[in-house]
Amino acid sequence: MVRTVAVIGAGPSGLTSIKSCLDEGLEPTCFESSDDIGGLWKFKEVSEPNRASIYRSLTINISKEMMCFSDFPIPADYPNYMHHSRILQYFRLYAEHFKLLQHIHFQTSVRSVRQRPDFSHSGQWEVVTENREGQEERHMFDSVIVCSGHYSYPHLPLKDFSGIESFEGKYFHSWDYKGPEDLRGKRVVVIGIGNSGGDIAVESSRVAEQVYLSTRRGAWVIRVMSDNGLPVDMKYNTRFVHILFQLLPVNWLSWFGEKKLNAMYDHTMYALKPKHRLFSTIPVINDELPNKILTGGVMVKPNVQQIRGSSVVFEDGNTHTETYMLVDVIVFATGYNYDFPFLPPNVMHKSGHRLGLYKHVFPPTLEHPTMAVVGFIHALGAIMPQAEMQSRWVTRVFKGHKKLPSNRAMLKAVECDTKDMDKNYIVSKLVPLQVDFVSYMDDIAGEVGVRPSLAWLFFTDYPLFKRVLWGPVTAYQYRITGPGKWSGARRAIFTQFERMFQPFKTRQVEEKQGCSVAGRLLKLSLTAMVGGAAAYYFHLQPPSSLTYLLSKLTPQRA
Amino acid sequence: MVRTVAVIGAGPSGLTSIKSCLDEGLEPTCFESSDDIGGLWKFKEVSEPNRASIYRSLTINISKEMMCFSDFPIPADYPNYMHHSRILQYFRLYAEHFKLLQHIHFQTSVRSVRQRPDFSHSGQWEVVTENREGQEERHMFDSVIVCSGHYSYPHLPLKDFSGIESFEGKYFHSWDYKGPEDLRGKRVVVIGIGNSGGDIAVESSRVAEQVYLSTRRGAWVIRVMSDNGLPVDMKYNTRFVHILFQLLPVNWLSWFGEKKLNAMYDHTMYALKPKHRLFSTIPVINDELPNKILTGGVMVKPNVQQIRGSSVVFEDGNTHTETYMLVDVIVFATGYNYDFPFLPPNVMHKSGHRLGLYKHVFPPTLEHPTMAVVGFIHALGAIMPQAEMQSRWVTRVFKGHKKLPSNRAMLKAVECDTKDMDKNYIVSKLVPLQVDFVSYMDDIAGEVGVRPSLAWLFFTDYPLFKRVLWGPVTAYQYRITGPGKWSGARRAIFTQFERMFQPFKTRQVEEKQGCSVAGRLLKLSLTAMVGGAAAYYFHLQPPSSLTYLLSKLTPQRA
Repeated sequence: MVRTVAVIGAGPSGLTSIKSCLDEGLEPTCFESSDDIGGLWKFKEVSEPNRASIYRSLTINISKEMMCFSDFPIPADYPNYMHHSRILQYFRLYAEHFKLLQHIHFQTSVRSVRQRPDFSHSGQWEVVTENREGQEERHMFDSVIVCSGHYSYPHLPLKDFSGIESFEGKYFHSWDYKGPEDLRGKRVVVIGIGNSGGDIAVESSRVAEQVYLSTRRGAWVIRVMSDNGLPVDMKYNTRFVHILFQLLPVNWLSWFGEKKLNAMYDHTMYALKPKHRLFSTIPVINDELPNKILTGGVMVKPNVQQIRGSSVVFEDGNTHTETYMLVDVIVFATGYNYDFPFLPPNVMHKSGHRLGLYKHVFPPTLEHPTMAVVGFIHALGAIMPQAEMQSRWVTRVFKGHKKLPSNRAMLKAVECDTKDMDKNYIVSKLVPLQVDFVSYMDDIAGEVGVRPSLAWLFFTDYPLFKRVLWGPVTAYQYRITGPGKWSGARRAIFTQFERMFQPFKTRQVEEKQGCSVAGRLLKLSLTAMVGGAAAYYFHLQPPSSLTYLLSKLTPQRA
Repeated sequence: MVRTVAVIGAGPSGLTSIKSCLDEGLEPTCFESSDDIGGLWKFKEVSEPNRASIYRSLTINISKEMMCFSDFPIPADYPNYMHHSRILQYFRLYAEHFKLLQHIHFQTSVRSVRQRPDFSHSGQWEVVTENREGQEERHMFDSVIVCSGHYSYPHLPLKDFSGIESFEGKYFHSWDYKGPEDLRGKRVVVIGIGNSGGDIAVESSRVAEQVYLSTRRGAWVIRVMSDNGLPVDMKYNTRFVHILFQLLPVNWLSWFGEKKLNAMYDHTMYALKPKHRLFSTIPVINDELPNKILTGGVMVKPNVQQIRGSSVVFEDGNTHTETYMLVDVIVFATGYNYDFPFLPPNVMHKSGHRLGLYKHVFPPTLEHPTMAVVGFIHALGAIMPQAEMQSRWVTRVFKGHKKLPSNRAMLKAVECDTKDMDKNYIVSKLVPLQVDFVSYMDDIAGEVGVRPSLAWLFFTDYPLFKRVLWGPVTAYQYRITGPGKWSGARRAIFTQFERMFQPFKTRQVEEKQGCSVAGRLLKLSLTAMVGGAAAYYFHLQPPSSLTYLLSKLTPQRA
């Protein structure tokens, strides 16, 4: 019977894991190598080895209602997309509210986690930590939750860039990027069009002489600001859209989504268009990149073929003609490797490129399910609610309320997941795991017993049913019922759009002017007139009603 | 008979005036107080008194094909929206190509321009200049073109801000703003939501702790990036749309445009919505402001009611409740006053708030039409082609090829224009003149004799007719025929979209994948299925076809 839990890391995943432990009556002890909570979201002026690092201007690309923990809504007046400093504030509020801080040992690194000699009997672990004076300490725990994140080890593929050793300028990994100050007046190549690459290209273009954004594959670029200015995830990350995704062929959905994206900025014209389809990978989120391309600050370039002294040679598609560019700085926004150096090798079961974990949480080869990895997940959605859901499951399993399948069944499931991922997504060594946000949340919620039942809601609480079906899949939905039920969940769902609107209310604006009947009639007849005349001149097909309809499918205010 | 012309100022208006003089065989002498061409577009690290000033990051909000001079297209590889440094490069190319530099006296300020004693007979002017050693010199000219611009005298309405003398922070006019460096970590109020106010709010929000954008009236905010990523003016500033504006009620057009804008970001939700209609004034152009509101960096606030020590009090609409904000810096983006201190008072005929000039060019009270103001104009379009058109007219008048009406008729026309402006636009002391770009260009072109005739083109050159009607009203259209006809004009019109696309061609992208017949059928049936299902569930009205149609009205590639 598990009682004590070592939680490794006090980032968002660690914090919510501590809370889940407390909720289940477990005794968590969290080891955090730095001097503060927040993990990735704790900005530091200088990057520190083996720790995640963010840049000064970083703003999250998931809206506040979609990123918050399920029983602790983000304050109404916080902006919808928060700067990292605000996110850290939110984590502080969370940690204080649930009294998590007293369980955290700061400036204490975990050196190793090993099965105790009697593991097959006890399921226990020996955790060796090192404090800031360098003193090692051994602890015994009934269980371990690993929340060390996956943005700590920069991937710098220098060997793929022939001639890099001759480069006369400066180069560094995006992990080292803090702001554009040193790039003033420079010619900069940013390699990689992930979210970091896009952000760094945009930001440095404001001071650099010229920025080249080099991409092998191209990318679909989406905006956080959706129709009518709503946060894109509040509008489209709904259960209804999720159901559509189950029903319709993904190629058709990609075609539809690509059409909508190209209506904003043609990805072919903007030299962004990738070979892969929209929903084959998580798209890049960047509201400013297209504008920077339009104004010339950022030039999208193909893959770097070679580096020669002070110039960079780009390969030019099929023709393989070279274009040389004089360059002062190269920024490698080439992603991160994952690593858990403190874990025993037998836990690190590999499946394809990824770490083979049962439902991305449990090592499938252990005799006892007393170790879990939380927050090691990648979806078009925030990690926070996913990590929270994982930790709720983990603590239920630790407590013995839930059983895991046999090792063999788990291994089979892991292989199955790997194959599915390979089929549905572009999977690489660097991005080895991708899940669908709602499917994954629902799946783990099913394990915990907190998955909302639409049928049950339909008959028992129709107003809530409507909001759960049409509204965004906010994490509150997983607190309506079952273990960990929160009495505020229903209200949180009913008020989620109020909290979304709140930060905009900074200047009183007259609501829509009414329109007289005569005015409406005039508008209608003019509309018909102009529309008809135009149709006559241009022999246009009738407009596809689908764009319009689908954009209306999810009511704006649930 | 005019032979010599004094051109005051070597900004874009001055440069094109010199060129027009040369084209007409006149002898221009340009006096430029600074040491370089470009006027406004010559960036200086420190603002200089009585000169226009721009900030380091300024990018023009008119696309290159719509801002260039009519017989000198901007190089194809220049970006569509150019940074000020590129614009200056273009002016250099223009000045070199047409050999304008030799006519410019740099570091020579004009102190006074006075009618010669024999003016009623000769129409001549005495121009007193001062060189950098402070030496005055007197010159005699047959005529004068004033190109001194209207962004030189910051309007700082301190008396409207009660308590400003108690303000403990720093305040300055946007004219003094060069970049956000000094605003790091500060709480900033930007007063005024013009183009400068918007730009400064957005830029400073990247480093400031918080930016408040205070606006009395609110504003309609448009983007330079239009549908499919096309420059908005290339898509909508067409002759066809212009004709629609003549035919349809402006209120309906405003309603339609507002609807389209609100579909991008709801101006009510974003606290931007003004009381005035979209087309009652020139909208603010800012692609990033809505995003900064969404991410909380910029908060739109109402008018400042009072300043008290270190805090600013905003009045809150109808309720007149106060909201206090602690503030470190106030930026007054409150516009400019116009002034021509060197001109004789009798030229400065006032009409309403504005300088009464016949068609915004000729002082209407002179005995001889030997003085003109060029570039003193404000429209939703670039000043450059308008100034060029004015200077072409001016030099035709100077040469005697064109006659002006009687003084009385000109005065009447001026009053008429003033009344029209008052009727159609929000006219204030600061923005005393606004014209419709195409109407104004066509009007002056009519004076010069270079207005393109659609009927004539229809019968003589149908491919060109199509491009002139449906395509953007680029200035090349005014070089097709008449005095100053340019043999390259037709080709320039046919290649204007090529030049627009050119700067995007930085990475080879595969063109659209074809879709098999089976695929198309599947898409069609799915579209019908989903659309039908959605319509059934939501009882939606059939979609308005107008948005779609109007967006297609002007072909994307002429």
